[in-house]
Amino acid sequence: MSIIGKQIEPFTLQAYRNGDFVEVTDEDFKGKWSVLCFYPADFTFVCPTELEDLQEQYDELKKLGCEVYSCSADTHFVHKAWHDHSEAIGKITYTMIGDPSHKLIRMFDVLREEEGVADRGTFIIDPDGVIQAVEINADGIGRDASTLIDKIKAAQYVRNHPGEVCPAKWKEGEETLKPSLDLVGKI
Amino acid sequence: MSIIGKQIEPFTLQAYRNGDFVEVTDEDFKGKWSVLCFYPADFTFVCPTELEDLQEQYDELKKLGCEVYSCSADTHFVHKAWHDHSEAIGKITYTMIGDPSHKLIRMFDVLREEEGVADRGTFIIDPDGVIQAVEINADGIGRDASTLIDKIKAAQYVRNHPGEVCPAKWKEGEETLKPSLDLVGKI
Amino acid sequence: MSIIGKQIEPFTLQAYRNGDFVEVTDEDFKGKWSVLCFYPADFTFVCPTELEDLQEQYDELKKLGCEVYSCSADTHFVHKAWHDHSEAIGKITYTMIGDPSHKLIRMFDVLREEEGVADRGTFIIDPDGVIQAVEINADGIGRDASTLIDKIKAAQYVRNHPGEVCPAKWKEGEETLKPSLDLVGKI
Amino acid sequence: MSIIGKQIEPFTLQAYRNGDFVEVTDEDFKGKWSVLCFYPADFTFVCPTELEDLQEQYDELKKLGCEVYSCSADTHFVHKAWHDHSEAIGKITYTMIGDPSHKLIRMFDVLREEEGVADRGTFIIDPDGVIQAVEINADGIGRDASTLIDKIKAAQYVRNHPGEVCPAKWKEGEETLKPSLDLVGKI
Amino acid sequence: MSIIGKQIEPFTLQAYRNGDFVEVTDEDFKGKWSVLCFYPADFTFVCPTELEDLQEQYDELKKLGCEVYSCSADTHFVHKAWHDHSEAIGKITYTMIGDPSHKLIRMFDVLREEEGVADRGTFIIDPDGVIQAVEINADGIGRDASTLIDKIKAAQYVRNHPGEVCPAKWKEGEETLKPSLDLVGKI
Amino acid sequence: MSIIGKQIEPFTLQAYRNGDFVEVTDEDFKGKWSVLCFYPADFTFVCPTELEDLQEQYDELKKLGCEVYSCSADTHFVHKAWHDHSEAIGKITYTMIGDPSHKLIRMFDVLREEEGVADRGTFIIDPDGVIQAVEINADGIGRDASTLIDKIKAAQYVRNHPGEVCPAKWKEGEETLKPSLDLVGKI
Amino acid sequence: MSIIGKQIEPFTLQAYRNGDFVEVTDEDFKGKWSVLCFYPADFTFVCPTELEDLQEQYDELKKLGCEVYSCSADTHFVHKAWHDHSEAIGKITYTMIGDPSHKLIRMFDVLREEEGVADRGTFIIDPDGVIQAVEINADGIGRDASTLIDKIKAAQYVRNHPGEVCPAKWKEGEETLKPSLDLVGKI
Amino acid sequence: MSIIGKQIEPFTLQAYRNGDFVEVTDEDFKGKWSVLCFYPADFTFVCPTELEDLQEQYDELKKLGCEVYSCSADTHFVHKAWHDHSEAIGKITYTMIGDPSHKLIRMFDVLREEEGVADRGTFIIDPDGVIQAVEINADGIGRDASTLIDKIKAAQYVRNHPGEVCPAKWKEGEETLKPSLDLVGKI
Amino acid sequence: MSIIGKQIEPFTLQAYRNGDFVEVTDEDFKGKWSVLCFYPADFTFVCPTELEDLQEQYDELKKLGCEVYSCSADTHFVHKAWHDHSEAIGKITYTMIGDPSHKLIRMFDVLREEEGVADRGTFIIDPDGVIQAVEINADGIGRDASTLIDKIKAAQYVRNHPGEVCPAKWKEGEETLKPSLDLVGKI
Amino acid sequence: MSIIGKQIEPFTLQAYRNGDFVEVTDEDFKGKWSVLCFYPADFTFVCPTELEDLQEQYDELKKLGCEVYSCSADTHFVHKAWHDHSEAIGKITYTMIGDPSHKLIRMFDVLREEEGVADRGTFIIDPDGVIQAVEINADGIGRDASTLIDKIKAAQYVRNHPGEVCPAKWKEGEETLKPSLDLVGKI
Repeated sequence: MSIIGKQIEPFTLQAYRNGDFVEVTDEDFKGKWSVLCFYPADFTFVCPTELEDLQEQYDELKKLGCEVYSCSADTHFVHKAWHDHSEAIGKITYTMIGDPSHKLIRMFDVLREEEGVADRGTFIIDPDGVIQAVEINADGIGRDASTLIDKIKAAQYVRNHPGEVCPAKWKEGEETLKPSLDLVGKI
Repeated sequence: MSIIGKQIEPFTLQAYRNGDFVEVTDEDFKGKWSVLCFYPADFTFVCPTELEDLQEQYDELKKLGCEVYSCSADTHFVHKAWHDHSEAIGKITYTMIGDPSHKLIRMFDVLREEEGVADRGTFIIDPDGVIQAVEINADGIGRDASTLIDKIKAAQYVRNHPGEVCPAKWKEGEETLKPSLDLVGKI
Repeated sequence: MSIIGKQIEPFTLQAYRNGDFVEVTDEDFKGKWSVLCFYPADFTFVCPTELEDLQEQYDELKKLGCEVYSCSADTHFVHKAWHDHSEAIGKITYTMIGDPSHKLIRMFDVLREEEGVADRGTFIIDPDGVIQAVEINADGIGRDASTLIDKIKAAQYVRNHPGEVCPAKWKEGEETLKPSLDLVGKI
Repeated sequence: MSIIGKQIEPFTLQAYRNGDFVEVTDEDFKGKWSVLCFYPADFTFVCPTELEDLQEQYDELKKLGCEVYSCSADTHFVHKAWHDHSEAIGKITYTMIGDPSHKLIRMFDVLREEEGVADRGTFIIDPDGVIQAVEINADGIGRDASTLIDKIKAAQYVRNHPGEVCPAKWKEGEETLKPSLDLVGKI
Repeated sequence: MSIIGKQIEPFTLQAYRNGDFVEVTDEDFKGKWSVLCFYPADFTFVCPTELEDLQEQYDELKKLGCEVYSCSADTHFVHKAWHDHSEAIGKITYTMIGDPSHKLIRMFDVLREEEGVADRGTFIIDPDGVIQAVEINADGIGRDASTLIDKIKAAQYVRNHPGEVCPAKWKEGEETLKPSLDLVGKI
Repeated sequence: MSIIGKQIEPFTLQAYRNGDFVEVTDEDFKGKWSVLCFYPADFTFVCPTELEDLQEQYDELKKLGCEVYSCSADTHFVHKAWHDHSEAIGKITYTMIGDPSHKLIRMFDVLREEEGVADRGTFIIDPDGVIQAVEINADGIGRDASTLIDKIKAAQYVRNHPGEVCPAKWKEGEETLKPSLDLVGKI
Repeated sequence: MSIIGKQIEPFTLQAYRNGDFVEVTDEDFKGKWSVLCFYPADFTFVCPTELEDLQEQYDELKKLGCEVYSCSADTHFVHKAWHDHSEAIGKITYTMIGDPSHKLIRMFDVLREEEGVADRGTFIIDPDGVIQAVEINADGIGRDASTLIDKIKAAQYVRNHPGEVCPAKWKEGEETLKPSLDLVGKI
Repeated sequence: MSIIGKQIEPFTLQAYRNGDFVEVTDEDFKGKWSVLCFYPADFTFVCPTELEDLQEQYDELKKLGCEVYSCSADTHFVHKAWHDHSEAIGKITYTMIGDPSHKLIRMFDVLREEEGVADRGTFIIDPDGVIQAVEINADGIGRDASTLIDKIKAAQYVRNHPGEVCPAKWKEGEETLKPSLDLVGKI
Repeated sequence: MSIIGKQIEPFTLQAYRNGDFVEVTDEDFKGKWSVLCFYPADFTFVCPTELEDLQEQYDELKKLGCEVYSCSADTHFVHKAWHDHSEAIGKITYTMIGDPSHKLIRMFDVLREEEGVADRGTFIIDPDGVIQAVEINADGIGRDASTLIDKIKAAQYVRNHPGEVCPAKWKEGEETLKPSLDLVGKI
Repeated sequence: MSIIGKQIEPFTLQAYRNGDFVEVTDEDFKGKWSVLCFYPADFTFVCPTELEDLQEQYDELKKLGCEVYSCSADTHFVHKAWHDHSEAIGKITYTMIGDPSHKLIRMFDVLREEEGVADRGTFIIDPDGVIQAVEINADGIGRDASTLIDKIKAAQYVRNHPGEVCPAKWKEGEETLKPSLDLVGKI
C-alpha cells in the first residue's frame, strides 16, 4: 500500500526547539501544513547540511503556514548538545524531535532495522494529518529542501481549488489543469 | 521497513517503446542505472505533463548511463494508443511499461488499493537493482524531473567514491564530505 | 459452485457512457434485465468487433427492457479515448465500465490472474441482480451477440410464466414446455 | 479465477454409448477436441430437447474432429433406460456420462449444491484437455447447440494459425485479424 | 457410535408416490412407524426385486401403522420413469424418495463415497423419528423384506409394553421376557 | 461412510471357547467367512436367547466354512461363568470374545457410549476380513439367526460367481441375475 | 497433581446391593464417609478374597458412619450373577457398582487403558466428597481391608479436631499432635 | 491412567544419606526393589513419626532386598540439618532425597501445586523401575509402614512365581491362588 | 523488558518472623519501602553470612521506614529450625518468607529452574510496590548489604524531591542534580 | 528465569574508544572478565557521573584482567561528541558502545520499551561470556562503581578456587568458606 494518503497516528515524543525542551504529539500536526524531515543521526556529516538547508527554507515555509520538524533516533538531549556545538545546527529554530524508541520512524516506514536509525525521508503532511508527498534518499545522498516550497504550494493550491490539478514543474502563479471529459487525450 | 535498499524482484511485463511492443524484465535493471516513474493513468491530465517533462531529461539521463521507464496499470496497447493520439506523449522515446496485474506497482508499494492505479512515485535504481531514492506525490501534484539529474549524479558519485558522501544541495563538481572521526560535530 | 444463481454484490465503479463520465453501482442492476460483457483490453483487436456487435443488438435489447454494460480492466479515461479514436467503438452508446482494481472482474470469476485482464465473458442478469446465463470464450475467439436476444427472451418468458420452460433452440412465439408428471420420459 | 484455461483433472466414470456401457476417463479428452454438455437430470423436459439438438450437430462436430459427451448426476443405467424409452434420447449416439458422485460436475464448477444436480453448462475442450469456451444457462432456458460449430471452428482456426484471432460473429472462411502494433486503435 | 438410537435430522426432498410428485420431510417420520429402504440405483438388477418384495409387505406394514419409503441417489423423475417402465416397480405404491444431493443417504451413513450411490440399507424408525433397527447388505446380496414385519411387531410390542423385551426369533403372540433381578443368569 | 466394505483392523482380545480361554485376533478372520455377533451384556435376558439361537445355526454355518464369534463388553471370565451357570449359554460351542476395553465394539461402530455396552449387531465378514452385511436391532428386540444362512450363501455365491447377483429373498439353488445391458429396466 | 483433595464429580451408575438393583450417584457420597474399592473383574481370583475381606470390615465401618462401595467394569447384572454363584461374594451386603463405560474408573485414575478394567484401588472419601486417602496395588497383590478402619478413624479425628494431626501408626485413643511453633524440629 | 505400571523416568537429585551427601538417579532404582516415601516438609509434625516408623522397618526391608528413600521438596542441606537436630530423624539411615525443583514429586503425581510440597505418598517400585503399589494419605493422617513388608513380600512372590496371585490379607507362607479356568466363579 | 519499574503482583505466603509464623502478602509491600532479599537455601554457607549482614543493617533500614524480608524456596518450618540452630540466623528479627511453590521467586525472575532454588537477588521496592533497584550475584559471591542504605536514601530522596536526581556515589546530604536544559553536556 | 548464568549472544556494534571508532562483538567478551555498564542517554545528568566514577575504577579493573564497556541507545557518533564536549566524559578511556537498534540492550533485559533507552544496569561477565552479577537502579539513582572491584575479586576467587565460596562483605585476602557437610547449620 502506498504511504501517500496515510493518516498520522497518535504519538507523544520529546523534542528540542530553539532553546527549550518541548513535547510533540500528533495533535501538533492537525490544522496546519507540516514538513517532517527524518535523518540518520546527530553529529554526522550529511545530516547537518540537510538540516541547515531546511532552516534556510524555514521562513518561507512558515509564510506558507507550514511548520517544520526534524526527527532522528537520537534523544532530545543529544539534539540540544548538537545544537550547542555545531555551527550549522546552532542556526536551527524549528523543532527537533527525539525518537530513540523508533515510534515515529516506524510510523513513516523509514527505519533501517539493522542499524536502528532513520532513512533520509522528507514528508509533507496536510492539515488533516495526511501524508501528501514523500522523498527519500539513500544514505550519502543529501536532499535539496528548495523543492519543498513548490510542492507545498502545489499541494495547497490543489487543496484550496477542488477540481484543479498542478502539472509537472508547476510554479505558483502558473496555469493549472481542470480535468474534464474534453481534456482526455488532449494533453 | 524502508523501501530504500530494497532489491528489485523478478518480473516480466509488456511495454511500448517508441513504436514497438517489447518485454521488460528485472534483468533489464541490472548493470545500469534506471529511473522508474509510476503514474496513475493514461489519457489523464497531470500524467502527460510529467511524462513529457521526464522525456526532456531523457538525453541527459542517458548520458549518465541511466535508462528511463514509465509504468501505469494501463496495458501496453493503451500506451501505444496514447502515444499515437497525445501530442505530449507522442514525443516519448523511453519505455512505457503496462502493469494491469499490478505486479510492479505492488513491488514498489505505490498501489492505491481501492482505485487499482499507481501513485506518482519516481524511483532511482542502481546497477545492482537496488532502490537508491524515491519521491512520491499525492495525486494532483506534478513532479519535477529536473531534480533527478542531481540525485543520480550524487548517487553515482557516492557509488564510485567509497568513503565520500554528498551534502545537501550538492551539484556535480562541488565538494563532497569524507566522513571521519574528526568531522564529528564539526559541521 | 455454479456461477448461475449468484447474486451481484455491492460495488461502485467509474464508467464512460456516450459522452459522459458516470458512476455505476450494483443498484443500477436492480429492477431491470442487464447484459454485462467483459473483454480483455481497450485498443486491441477482437474486442472492438465484439463491442460493436453488441451495439448492433442494443436497440433490440433495450426494447426487451434490458440494459447493456461492457467492462474491462481499463480506466474510464481510456474508454473515453478509445471511443474518441476508434470507428467501431465510437458508435457505442451503452455504458463502458472501467475496473482497474478488478472488483467486478473478480466478482464474476473472469480474471486472468497472471495478466490482470478479464476473459471474454457475457452475463445475463435478471431484475433481482441474479446471474441467469453466462458465456465465456478463450481469447482469440469472438462472441456472437445475436444469441443474447433469444436467451433473454427465454429467460424473461420463464420468469413471467412460472411453470413453463423453454426447450433447446426456443424462439419467441414457439411453444414452451409445461413440466408435468405426464411428460416424464415422454420427450 | 476464470474457468477458461483450466486443465481437465484425472477421473474415471461409467457411461452409456449407443448400446454399450463404457468407461470414460480424462485420457479420452486428450488429443482431440471435445464438447462436454452438462444438464440437470434424465427424464425431465428441457434436457431431452437440448441433447437431441446436440445430436443433430454430432455429425458436423465429428467432421471437425470433435467428440461429444453429455453428463448428468444420473447413473449410466438411467441413461440407458432413458435412451430406451425416450424418442428424442433414443437418437443419441454420443457418449452419455453418469456422474452420481458429482466428480466431473464439481470439476467444471456446475454443481447446484442444494439439489445435487448439474447446471446447463456446455464446455469446449481443446486437444490438450484445456477449457476454451463455456456457456451456462439457468434452468428453464434451453441452449442452442448450433452456435457450437462456429465456436469450435474459431477455436481450431486460432490454434492452427498462431498470430491470428477471430472477430465477433466470425464464420469459417471469413477474414480473421492479425493483431499488430499498427492495428492498435484502428478497429 | 451406534446408528441405533440416532434421531432423524431435518430434511426436505422430492419423491414419487404412486402417480404423483410429493415432498417428503423429516416431519413425515414423526408420529408413526416407518421403514426406510435405501438401494443403489434405479434401472438396475437386484434393486427392483427388493423393492417389489417390499411392496408385497406393504399392506401388512400399513396395518401395523407403518409407512414405507424407498430412497436412492436417483431423482424423483427417474423414479417416475422406472415406475412407468418396469413391471416390478410399476406395482409400487409406497413413496420413492429421490436424493441426488445425498442428504438422506449421508444422514443414515450408507453412502458409498466413490460411487455416489447408497448401500442396501433398511431402517426401522419409531414414531419419535429414532432408528430402532438397521440391516445392510453388500451389493449383490438382496434383502428379504419379510423379516421386517416381525422386527416391527417386536419393536412396537416393546414400545407399548415398558418392562418387557422380545427374545430371539420372537413372533407376535409368543411370550416375551420381563427383565428382573430374578431372571439374571436364569436364561 | 457405509460400514459395508470396511476392512477389519488389527486387534488382540481374550475369549472363552467351549471350556478354554483363547486369544482371538484379526488374523483369525482371514481366509474364512465369519459371523460376529455383538450383544449388550452377559447375564441378561434377550442376549441368551439370541446366543442360543445362533448356536442352533452353528453346525450349518460351519458347513458353509463360516466361523462364529459372539462379543460383549464383558470379560472372558464372565463369559466362562455365564457358560457355567446358564442353561442356554452352556450349549454354546463357538467363541465368546471379551471386550471390556471396547476395542472391537468401537471398530464395528456399535458402542452405546453412555452405557459402555454393545448394540445388538450381527456382522458377516468375508475371507478378506471385509464386512459384507450387518443387522442391528435396538435393545429389547431379539434377532433371528436363521436369516444368516441365506445371506452367507448369497454372499458366497456372489463371491464365487463374479458377474452374478442375488435378488431379494434369494435361496440357495434359485436363479440369480446376470446384470447386463439388456436387463436394464427389464426387471 | 495429587489425587488427594480431589472432589468427586457428578455421575449416575447402576449397582447391585444385597438382592436389589439400585442407582448410585455422586450425591450418595455427600454427607457421610465412604470407602470406594475398585477391582479388576468379577469371577476372577484375587478380587473375591478382597471383597470378602472388605465385607468383614463392613459392620465396623458402618459403626464409623462409613458406607462401602465396590466397583468394577462389569455390569450390575454380572455382579448379581457373581453374588448368586460365589460363596465369598454371596456374603456381600454393601453396594456393588457396575461401570462398563469406565466413568467412575477414569474419575479416580485407576483405568488400565489397554485392558479396559480397573486397578486394585481403595479410596477413602470424606462427607464433602473429597478424597482423603488412596491405596492401589498392582494386579496379583491383594489388599488388606483391616488398615482402613484406622485410617478412617484418623481422618475423622482430624476432621473433628481442627488443629490436631495423627502421627504414624496412630490408633484411636492414642495421643495426637498439635502442630505448633514450639514443636518445630522437636520431633 | 493408573499410576500403577508406570516406569520411573530419568532424574538426578541430591540426597542426604547417613552422614553423607550423595547423588541419586533413576539408575539406583534398577535391579532391586525400592520403597519411595514422599512427605510434605522437614521440621514438621507428622512427617518425623512416619520417617521414624519407616526406619524401624528398614532392616526387615533390606533383608527383602529392598532399598528405602524418603523425599520432600526440602534441600539435602535441610535434610542434614533435620537429621542433626531431630531425635527421631537422627536415627534414619536410609537415603533422604531433596527435591526443591519438584522433579520426582511431579513424576509420581503427588505435588500439591498451590503449596509446593508433596503429599504423603508411599510407592513400591520393582527392580524394573515400575510402580507396583501406592498409598497416599491426606495431610494430618500418618501412614503405617508395617503394611509395606507384606505388600513387598506379595509383590516379590508374584514376580517370582508367574501364574500365581496373592489373595487379600495374604501373609508370607500362606497359600496363593493359581488362576485357572476351573477357579472362575469358584471363589 | 527491564525488571525495574515492575509492580509486585498479588501473593500470599507463610513466613517466620522472630518467633512467630505469619502470613505475608503483596499488601504488606504497599505504603512503605521494602528490601526483599532472595537466597538459595537455608542451612548453607554464604546465605547465613548475607542474612546476618542484612540484619546488621536492619535498624538503620527501619529508621528509613524500610521493612526487610528474606525469601528462599525453603518452608517457614525450615526457617524456624534454621533460626533455632544457627548462631548467625538466630539473630535475625526481620521476616523470613518460605516459598516452596516458587511464586515470589518466579515473580522476581530469580528462579534457577533446574535446581528449584533462588538466585542471590536483592530488590528495593518503593511504597507503591514498584521495583526501584536490584542486585543479583552468582552463587558463591556474597552480597554487601551496606550499599542498600545509600541506594534507599537516594531512591527516597528522588521520590520526595521531584525534579532532582542523585549522581553516582551520592551519599545523603551531598548535592544532587537538577536536570535542566542548561546542564545538558555540562557534566 | 534468572539473568545470572545467561551466555552472551552473538552481536556486532559500533563503538567509540578513546579517540577511535571501533567495532565490538561478542568475541571481545570471551577469554577475559568484563564489566558492561548500561545507562539511559548521553548528554544527560546522572549518566556522566556514573561513567566518570567507572573510569576512576578502570585502572584497578584492568589490573584484575577486566575490560570495561559502557553502552547506551545513542550512536557512536554521539559518544564521540559527548567525549569531546563533556569534561567528565572526556576522561573516559574505556569502550563506549552505541546501540541505537537496542540489540545489546534487549539481550541484557534492560530496555525501557516506551522510551527506547536503557536502564542503569551494570553486569559482570566472566571469561566464558556468562553473566555473574548484575546491579540495576531506577533512573535518578546513581550507581557506585567501587563495589565492582570486590565483586569481581570474589567472582574470580570462586572461579579459581573450585570448592570455595565468598561470604557476605568478603574482601580480597579475607577467609572464604569451604562448603562441607560439617558446615551445614553451623554458620
